[in-house]
Amino acid sequence: MKEFELIKHYFSEQIVKRKDVVKGIGDDCAVIAPIENQNIVVTTDTLVAGVHFPLTTCPRAIGHKAVAVNLSDIAAMGAKPSWISLALTLPEVDEAWLAEFCAGVFELCEFYNVELIGGDTTQGPLSITITAQGLTPVNSYLSRSGAKTGDWIYVTGELGDAALALQQIKGEVSIEEHFVESIQTKLDFPKPKVLAGQVIREYASSAIDISDGLIADLGHICQASNVGANIVLDALPLSNALRESLLEDDAIALALAGGDDYELLFTVSEDNKVGMETALSNSGTKITCIGQLNASQTISTTLNNKPVPINSVGFEHFSQS
Amino acid sequence: MKEFELIKHYFSEQIVKRKDVVKGIGDDCAVIAPIENQNIVVTTDTLVAGVHFPLTTCPRAIGHKAVAVNLSDIAAMGAKPSWISLALTLPEVDEAWLAEFCAGVFELCEFYNVELIGGDTTQGPLSITITAQGLTPVNSYLSRSGAKTGDWIYVTGELGDAALALQQIKGEVSIEEHFVESIQTKLDFPKPKVLAGQVIREYASSAIDISDGLIADLGHICQASNVGANIVLDALPLSNALRESLLEDDAIALALAGGDDYELLFTVSEDNKVGMETALSNSGTKITCIGQLNASQTISTTLNNKPVPINSVGFEHFSQS
Repeated sequence: MKEFELIKHYFSEQIVKRKDVVKGIGDDCAVIAPIENQNIVVTTDTLVAGVHFPLTTCPRAIGHKAVAVNLSDIAAMGAKPSWISLALTLPEVDEAWLAEFCAGVFELCEFYNVELIGGDTTQGPLSITITAQGLTPVNSYLSRSGAKTGDWIYVTGELGDAALALQQIKGEVSIEEHFVESIQTKLDFPKPKVLAGQVIREYASSAIDISDGLIADLGHICQASNVGANIVLDALPLSNALRESLLEDDAIALALAGGDDYELLFTVSEDNKVGMETALSNSGTKITCIGQLNASQTISTTLNNKPVPINSVGFEHFSQS
Repeated sequence: MKEFELIKHYFSEQIVKRKDVVKGIGDDCAVIAPIENQNIVVTTDTLVAGVHFPLTTCPRAIGHKAVAVNLSDIAAMGAKPSWISLALTLPEVDEAWLAEFCAGVFELCEFYNVELIGGDTTQGPLSITITAQGLTPVNSYLSRSGAKTGDWIYVTGELGDAALALQQIKGEVSIEEHFVESIQTKLDFPKPKVLAGQVIREYASSAIDISDGLIADLGHICQASNVGANIVLDALPLSNALRESLLEDDAIALALAGGDDYELLFTVSEDNKVGMETALSNSGTKITCIGQLNASQTISTTLNNKPVPINSVGFEHFSQS
């Protein structure tokens, strides 16, 4: 296990040193001094090689994505990320791989001032589990359960590109050369909407990050909040890459159910709509209103003002990809 | 992935509900309300099937051990465990397996009033990563770095039994029938020394839990504290099972380097010795003084008052088992 001892040196080379970390990496536990009047949010996400990312994914992207998917959950609570613990299971110690992996982990940590406070390195099939924590003022956080009938449904960014990139890797679709890099970046280096999450905390009635796909994650909000929803398919924010690579129906299906977007899906009451839009406009985050909640307990979709049935079998297929 | 949704129901059936958990399992993050004047300790440990436990291990033991090894780290800081996050990677969903695994997780959580606040369930080779957190009064925690020359070295419990059980499973040693169950229990259901850790917090100069083996873990303390140590081999607490199953040299080697003991190793100054022994005697924890720290920067051992060289190759072998 001597080689695995060496790994520790890679992880001790981080730049971020937070004042609230009394003791970081290197003892049985890290020691944190929480700030008064703040709640702590905690989330854990695992990426398994070949399941959550293609085996061909570069190590920097794997490191980035492992952090990003966790910070995306923190963003969905409207919290500010603060510390991560990293459990890395590796088949073997490859120093070049590790250096790139750590670069991917640390560049996102540095951007958001998140300190790696500990973890574990073990031998086994490649898998990464990160527990990320964040801070939010006491009792001020977003959840899935606060949405109300009549609230407007918003998403940040554009949907479906990561799923399109995955289809391209599998050879299921042909993409024009000049789109390949941008969609590949969406899949490999998702940008968690951390700042947007904190801005909407004051305005949104509910929020979730889109990891399973828009329909599935909106379903989580509807279930937790006991509401239904209608999505206006014409309004879905699709990238040029998606519009030009697929037929309209297929593009919409990916945006609805492709997953791996790591955009925020949130709901806002009529009263908070203008305040939220104004606050977010200063942050440079693109948002799109894609529908409205209702009392139906189901999710419906309309296209050109006409109801369109959701092909649930198709979504099930996508949600497993 | 529908089956994996079902798993959530198993984990939502816990009994422990802590007041400081504002929001538990079921949203993007858990929300914790930390107590004033407390530090939070955080640790992460992964168990990989076939590496950290034999493939034949029963699911209840796997669940127990995954929690126990983490609580053992919390104990080594002198802290009180409070919350865990569980990342479970499973090759397939087997409801009977899951029920037993959860029973193993929850019985230890219930005993220590630890709430499962979230996690992730993914498909892949069997592996469990737990991030455990605990509470300790501000700036009152044990670390590896406070030991001083002249301090006495103590361990809780008995050493080497878990390693003996592993040798028996591998068919490397023959154990008398009436010892088999007790040593198997030591391997499968280690008892983290959580209460002892909190008691010694007021007295010990350093502490660590013995997971890698006594020599290796004492080495961590010596390195962090910039001291050396002598271990009196005659004093090592060996079980009857270990004494009667192996030759003296082999028994001592397992106690020194077998690992997987999850006992506490700690150091106490001459001044605090009596206070610590008195305080711990009320807790029912067996402790043994096994040597003393010195200024040598190395670890030496004596038997019958004579120096005995440490066979470092042998220990290296054991530490990889």
